[in-house]
Amino acid sequence: MESPLPIDYTLLRPDAGYEAVDKLCREAIFLGYHAVCIPPCYLTLATETLRNSPVRIATVVDYPHGFSPAEVKVYAAQMAILDGAQELDVVLNVSRLKSGNLQYVEAEIEALRVLTARKGVVLKVIIEAGLLSQQELQNACKICAAQGVDFVKNSSGVNGGSASPELIFQLRSLLPAHIQIKASGGIRTAEQARVLLQAGASRLGTSARILLSETSTV
Amino acid sequence: MESPLPIDYTLLRPDAGYEAVDKLCREAIFLGYHAVCIPPCYLTLATETLRNSPVRIATVVDYPHGFSPAEVKVYAAQMAILDGAQELDVVLNVSRLKSGNLQYVEAEIEALRVLTARKGVVLKVIIEAGLLSQQELQNACKICAAQGVDFVKNSSGVNGGSASPELIFQLRSLLPAHIQIKASGGIRTAEQARVLLQAGASRLGTSARILLSETSTV
Repeated sequence: MESPLPIDYTLLRPDAGYEAVDKLCREAIFLGYHAVCIPPCYLTLATETLRNSPVRIATVVDYPHGFSPAEVKVYAAQMAILDGAQELDVVLNVSRLKSGNLQYVEAEIEALRVLTARKGVVLKVIIEAGLLSQQELQNACKICAAQGVDFVKNSSGVNGGSASPELIFQLRSLLPAHIQIKASGGIRTAEQARVLLQAGASRLGTSARILLSETSTV
Repeated sequence: MESPLPIDYTLLRPDAGYEAVDKLCREAIFLGYHAVCIPPCYLTLATETLRNSPVRIATVVDYPHGFSPAEVKVYAAQMAILDGAQELDVVLNVSRLKSGNLQYVEAEIEALRVLTARKGVVLKVIIEAGLLSQQELQNACKICAAQGVDFVKNSSGVNGGSASPELIFQLRSLLPAHIQIKASGGIRTAEQARVLLQAGASRLGTSARILLSETSTV
């Protein structure tokens, strides 16, 4: 049996409704994608639609601005897990990172790591690389590595710019090998997807229907 | 003594840091604005900086996408009030509204109204008018009126378009007189501000330094 394509099929527009999310879930099954990434208020819908399918359910926490206090992020994560989320894409507090409040940021990620590890939920941390200086990017990676998150994700697709092979390659060099990279932002074609996987990403976030028939990446 | 200018001086960019928020608070005192509107993770900072000033403290809940479940919105509101927020700008679940789940949306607003009323906190509901059809706009206003929110706010400034005098005038005609209107999105000049106040807004959200010296609006 083939491995699923390493794509989180994503619909996070605030004006996309119930039917669009349901359609996304059905397409994800048909296209053999790894997961859907949907608004938290549709987790119970997705759980129903994806029952008996291998497609996993991801949602976002404190998306896309990431400036809520840690307690609110943890509570949102708890609710999401209760509602069926198996993977969480959480926006790091970029504002606090840029203000140099690194202990604040690390404490937030640690609280999320404790919760997700306990429940076997995949934790992806969105760092909004496009908003960061080189030093800030290094600080974000250092915190994510120290806390053992599952994935570092370069962008929310809203504020943090696009995924480039150069950026993904750089993230790969900044992170230990066991921490995976999810590339996100502006991914629209199979060719882009392939290049990003070659650069070191092992997951792609996109709202485009991408077919990667020759890809062997898990 | 003069009334404060009816401006919520706003800084909600995810890359704005601690110092920028502190500066905003100091400017709000100097300029005689009604309130600041800041990220929730800076409420305790603002409470300190604005101590002994008449400037009020507003923050946002589930901003800017509004698609978290009601429990998460209520919890975020509780934390914000605990941290010193006196006014809450909450994004309505636009996706559920557009899906026709009106009871869902009304239940969410009701839960927030119960909490804020109990604590004497001003509740503003952001409806993202720019994403709505005429029917959806009417449904949003009907729900806000039924739940007795303090303000309807046309836009987050991110997804919901700009404030126009025509839109504010229309909202005024759709809402009972005791429900106020906060105009937001693209307000940059004193002339724009004046026209929006004349059209029926009684509060303006802007990140621009606007001087309204001749305005007599409360």
